Amino acid sequence: MFTLDPDEQPTQWYNIVADLPTPPPPPLHPGTGQPVGPQDLEPLFPPELIAQEVTTDRFVDIPEPVLDVYRQYRATPLYRARRWEAKLGTPARIYYKYEGVSPAGSHKTNTAVPQVYYNSLHGVKRLTTETGAGQWGTALAYATALFGVDCEVWQVGASFDTKPARRTLIEVFGGTVHRSPSRLTEAGKAFPEGHPGSLGIAISEAVEVAAQDPETKYALGSVLNHVLLHQTVIGEETLKQLAKAGEAHVDLVVGCAGGGSNFAGLSFPFLRENLVNGKSTRLLAVEPASCPTLTRGEYRYDFGDTAGMTPLMKMYTLGHDFVPSPIHAGGLRYHGMAPLVSHAVCEGMIDAVALHQSECFTAAVEFARTQGVVPAPESSHAIAQARIEALAAKEAGEEKVIVIGLSGHGLLELGAYEKFLAGELEDDPLSEAALTASLQSVPTVG
Amino acid sequence: MFTLDPDEQPTQWYNIVADLPTPPPPPLHPGTGQPVGPQDLEPLFPPELIAQEVTTDRFVDIPEPVLDVYRQYRATPLYRARRWEAKLGTPARIYYKYEGVSPAGSHKTNTAVPQVYYNSLHGVKRLTTETGAGQWGTALAYATALFGVDCEVWQVGASFDTKPARRTLIEVFGGTVHRSPSRLTEAGKAFPEGHPGSLGIAISEAVEVAAQDPETKYALGSVLNHVLLHQTVIGEETLKQLAKAGEAHVDLVVGCAGGGSNFAGLSFPFLRENLVNGKSTRLLAVEPASCPTLTRGEYRYDFGDTAGMTPLMKMYTLGHDFVPSPIHAGGLRYHGMAPLVSHAVCEGMIDAVALHQSECFTAAVEFARTQGVVPAPESSHAIAQARIEALAAKEAGEEKVIVIGLSGHGLLELGAYEKFLAGELEDDPLSEAALTASLQSVPTVG
Repeated sequence: MFTLDPDEQPTQWYNIVADLPTPPPPPLHPGTGQPVGPQDLEPLFPPELIAQEVTTDRFVDIPEPVLDVYRQYRATPLYRARRWEAKLGTPARIYYKYEGVSPAGSHKTNTAVPQVYYNSLHGVKRLTTETGAGQWGTALAYATALFGVDCEVWQVGASFDTKPARRTLIEVFGGTVHRSPSRLTEAGKAFPEGHPGSLGIAISEAVEVAAQDPETKYALGSVLNHVLLHQTVIGEETLKQLAKAGEAHVDLVVGCAGGGSNFAGLSFPFLRENLVNGKSTRLLAVEPASCPTLTRGEYRYDFGDTAGMTPLMKMYTLGHDFVPSPIHAGGLRYHGMAPLVSHAVCEGMIDAVALHQSECFTAAVEFARTQGVVPAPESSHAIAQARIEALAAKEAGEEKVIVIGLSGHGLLELGAYEKFLAGELEDDPLSEAALTASLQSVPTVG
Repeated sequence: MFTLDPDEQPTQWYNIVADLPTPPPPPLHPGTGQPVGPQDLEPLFPPELIAQEVTTDRFVDIPEPVLDVYRQYRATPLYRARRWEAKLGTPARIYYKYEGVSPAGSHKTNTAVPQVYYNSLHGVKRLTTETGAGQWGTALAYATALFGVDCEVWQVGASFDTKPARRTLIEVFGGTVHRSPSRLTEAGKAFPEGHPGSLGIAISEAVEVAAQDPETKYALGSVLNHVLLHQTVIGEETLKQLAKAGEAHVDLVVGCAGGGSNFAGLSFPFLRENLVNGKSTRLLAVEPASCPTLTRGEYRYDFGDTAGMTPLMKMYTLGHDFVPSPIHAGGLRYHGMAPLVSHAVCEGMIDAVALHQSECFTAAVEFARTQGVVPAPESSHAIAQARIEALAAKEAGEEKVIVIGLSGHGLLELGAYEKFLAGELEDDPLSEAALTASLQSVPTVG
């Protein structure tokens, strides 16, 4: 276990935009086709977050009240997976950065805390948001409890129905949960009651409610630049911890990617080292085969939500009305991908691969039995890909250094493990017809 | 967050027996009424554990393979509960030692690992055990996965029925779970199918199976001297971490007590400081009002299990056929108390108090909303008592230093929180008639 002393912990977030060779394409207003300005975002976000959304500064100071909460659970531990290495018989040295120790059990706390803090400076009484598996809703509920803000969460129906414990955890932290699609919004009413929902629909509902009430703002758990910025504490800590572990070179950084914030948080500091300091670490995003945004989507301007209420973002997309099959990695069921991650993938700086969930659970159980951590179904995608790479290193007799982003624990997703152990886990078919149809929903703007 | 560097971590367990003014009464053979010898324990335990059960050495070296696993999650963090202090408005400084970061999510891993390790040295193929809430079964399943031993767990029926996730977690780690009372043992068949069970019954079942197969041994998760010994890493680390926090004096150490190992693990090193180094820390065990072993039981020789298969131990007991009401803190539903803890309570070195579960959940939710940790229902007893003490310190204007043993997380017990939040949590009546009757089951030996 590699930790950091309090005085070694990062006090700034890192902004990859400052070091990108070409600037990422700006978000566009869907009506005018022109780049959105700060004023377009004001109904939804406080000024500090809007400033962070567009800043080109290389580093952004973390406010003291946020650092104060970070210090409660950060630096999160970096572990060497020695027992798993032995089990695999690989010469690779495998490390995992474990965000499951955070109050919400995942990396989501890292951005929930600053988002709520900035909102609290401006008299915001209530925050609305969406959640898939529930990790983000949990994190936002905890952060709102700290800063005295109300929290309302639209949870994707498929997760709401199968994961009552996650809803309870949000309620323990003081939040309110609605099943999405709900009857509370126009965006929700567009779908029949009992519809399994999607992140895109839930986003539409939360945005709709926030836009109608001046004392209510919206918080997004991934995708946007400021969210990715907040998550870079993961990668900055990991770089320092790897130095403590005596690793001068890392061959591979692997993380799961749904909206992209977990992956970016870990990998962007490594990307800086590649771009600025001559390092050559391969950065590999893993997505589910049932929602293969980076590997099967198109790099185009599209809406971030299903109802088309958000600005248009240039990103890999499966089409904003794509509804993926209800796999257990609910946090990866998003039709798009963070524009910054998409840009880096398009420019060849980040690779991507897609896996089926059964091979992810196989790897996750093996990992649990050796390392003692039950990974979130999302995180199991990174574990499974690292396993493939470690076995390839064994085949080739190479001493590779692999770093896994273990974004959260799976203790509230044991129902999925139960199905897997019972041999009842269905794999996750991608409907080619649905993909073709949903890609036609992508507007021709931009 | 106060951590320890790798070279500061304890490499020895501490044995309170060496420092007790009077020796604790020995266990007795139920047939002869004579003290049991090592040979009486050989069918159940490997020689190293039997030696630890009776040793008077002050310190016992932790074997390197056990330290290797400990290093994966230890030292567990010691936190100052600053936000909770602020919420309570108390001048008390409240610290909590958090064992929830262990692979099993509780302190139980600390003894599961050495128990399985020692068994593995002697060709043991299978370990049997009981589990209440499931924390201990989870820990043993994880440890057996590490050392290549099979694991069979008899889980108290009431927990088995209401906590499928806990059973799944044991299975993820490779263990097998039976509902207790089961149809697999004579001890189980003595009760009707569907009986809610108790720890005492489950122990009888696991002991019965182990006693019949030379390649199978039994592992107990609490009560016995060697189990308490293994848990002292908690208190030894805490003493060092408090020194780092600049606390020269601790007023109160508070922990929950079911079988007593969590409480002893934290408090015995503090008791040594009281006995040997002139310190004056109050040590306070908290038990449920529905199973008030220390506060309502009698200090007598009694069986550790319901069927009367174990040696007789001098301990506080409610009678070995006492079946407590099915409260959510399943790990505290035990009729007896570790002989070493009982002895120290009888000698006035440790205090005890009993609380109802509703006030425990009230405190636990407040704690979660400030500190971000959802306590196990067992641990919530310590939280609730600390809250009482912190509010008393506020009333008195005293700067007390309080240390809480937070023995595990409650992420697999969210069903209990759900009931509490919905106002449906029943409090836990103690039947005076049942207590009177069960005390009559205590034998007159000793």
